[in-house]
Amino acid sequence: MMEDMPPLVVACCQTAPSVGAVDDNLVALRAALGEALDAGAGIVVATELAGSGYAFADAEEARAHAEDLAGPTVSAYRDASQRGGGAVVVGGFCERGEDGNTYNSAVAVEAGAVLAVYRKLHLWHDEQSCFTPGAQAPPIVETRHGRIGVAICYDLEFPELTRALALRGADLLALPTNWPRTAIPPGERSMLGTLAMATARLSRTFVAVCDRAGAERGVDYEGASIVAGPDGYPLAESTDPLTPQVLTATVDLAHARDKRTGPRNDVVADRRPEVY
Amino acid sequence: MMEDMPPLVVACCQTAPSVGAVDDNLVALRAALGEALDAGAGIVVATELAGSGYAFADAEEARAHAEDLAGPTVSAYRDASQRGGGAVVVGGFCERGEDGNTYNSAVAVEAGAVLAVYRKLHLWHDEQSCFTPGAQAPPIVETRHGRIGVAICYDLEFPELTRALALRGADLLALPTNWPRTAIPPGERSMLGTLAMATARLSRTFVAVCDRAGAERGVDYEGASIVAGPDGYPLAESTDPLTPQVLTATVDLAHARDKRTGPRNDVVADRRPEVY
Repeated sequence: MMEDMPPLVVACCQTAPSVGAVDDNLVALRAALGEALDAGAGIVVATELAGSGYAFADAEEARAHAEDLAGPTVSAYRDASQRGGGAVVVGGFCERGEDGNTYNSAVAVEAGAVLAVYRKLHLWHDEQSCFTPGAQAPPIVETRHGRIGVAICYDLEFPELTRALALRGADLLALPTNWPRTAIPPGERSMLGTLAMATARLSRTFVAVCDRAGAERGVDYEGASIVAGPDGYPLAESTDPLTPQVLTATVDLAHARDKRTGPRNDVVADRRPEVY
Repeated sequence: MMEDMPPLVVACCQTAPSVGAVDDNLVALRAALGEALDAGAGIVVATELAGSGYAFADAEEARAHAEDLAGPTVSAYRDASQRGGGAVVVGGFCERGEDGNTYNSAVAVEAGAVLAVYRKLHLWHDEQSCFTPGAQAPPIVETRHGRIGVAICYDLEFPELTRALALRGADLLALPTNWPRTAIPPGERSMLGTLAMATARLSRTFVAVCDRAGAERGVDYEGASIVAGPDGYPLAESTDPLTPQVLTATVDLAHARDKRTGPRNDVVADRRPEVY
């Protein structure tokens, strides 16, 4: 029973991948995954396109970096997930589909086994020139630690998608992310963090966004990884966009099964779908 | 054309109504509406149940405070909306329906005319003992200043409702609110503010939440009124839960008609409703 489980650590491996530096990306990714597991993480989230780098010039360059489930990025996730008693890893990779298309994908693995592959539905900016958009709803994987919904970066801006994952039973939404930096007013956090917090609070789920650090081909990133709890507030949050880092938060995913916001209210049961 | 219009001021009249003090509530409400109009507001939002007070003990007490569209609270809104060239006012009132039921309602008036009445769909806590829930989707009113979607307080927690208002064309969501105070971690804002910001940002609308100040029958309120812009960040925000105040923000509602978040992205057009 989830209620009897020991504290669960969720980690975000905020690395700084770069196109053209695949070997370095993979070394840094494996090191960050190892650091997360050393910290006792049961669920580890990596960034979008963590092995290949993100800022492809065109479809040809993306295709040249695409890999299948035997490729080096997914292998890094699988290897990490076999550590100790077996962990869950959700991370991004540049996927070469059996159909020959290139996808901006995320994989969920547990104890060495691939549970699901998700192909990003909403493509941001020049991703539209590099990738085929996915055609399937995002998956929810049943793991030893709970139910994890998988989405990627810009998907977070579509409440239809995030709400559906929660209604389908996700305890935690895991989002590998590369969020370009935008102007942030003084004293405010990244809008990425605000959206993660609201998404968590609205459906009383956990949300783990693993953003990337640093810059790549002239684009700066937020480096704003965050783990938000069902009350919406951050359990862990990066405030340093420049520095690769491993964030950890201790969570009890059973709390996401309690949708009450008061003695007489429940964010799921109180919906009025017949009226909307 | 909206593009040629002068700057528009949106105001939130954060009063502190109390059951049993209707006369005082109405004096304070009229004074706050007047202050907003003196500040040049074209759109004014008042709190939930601004005339009657909020914390009814039971259905009988709510019924005793219910009014129709000729009642004192709606009259205060209509009178205010006739000031100058005519303003738009959205505010809460305890409604006695023609069906004899009591509703937690909001009215939208412009230049003395009632444009729409909305009956709260999602009832919070003991409102369930006092009110009949609404049965109709929230309205969008066409005004001289733009299209205003009307909802109330706890409705903000239902992304189905807020997203639908935006997709139906609302430039501004106006939410009369009485948000009970919750624990806020140091350095954070009210979750009410975070939800308003995310709601604005996700659909690139303006969101004006008029919360209430003070305490009533042992319940403290957030006093966290906020006007958020399409980028999600606050244009005006109360940080004082105890003090009645009139917040103002200058807005250009035309910005809510531009759903682009980048040169190749649009939060409405990029949706994948066939997949969700």
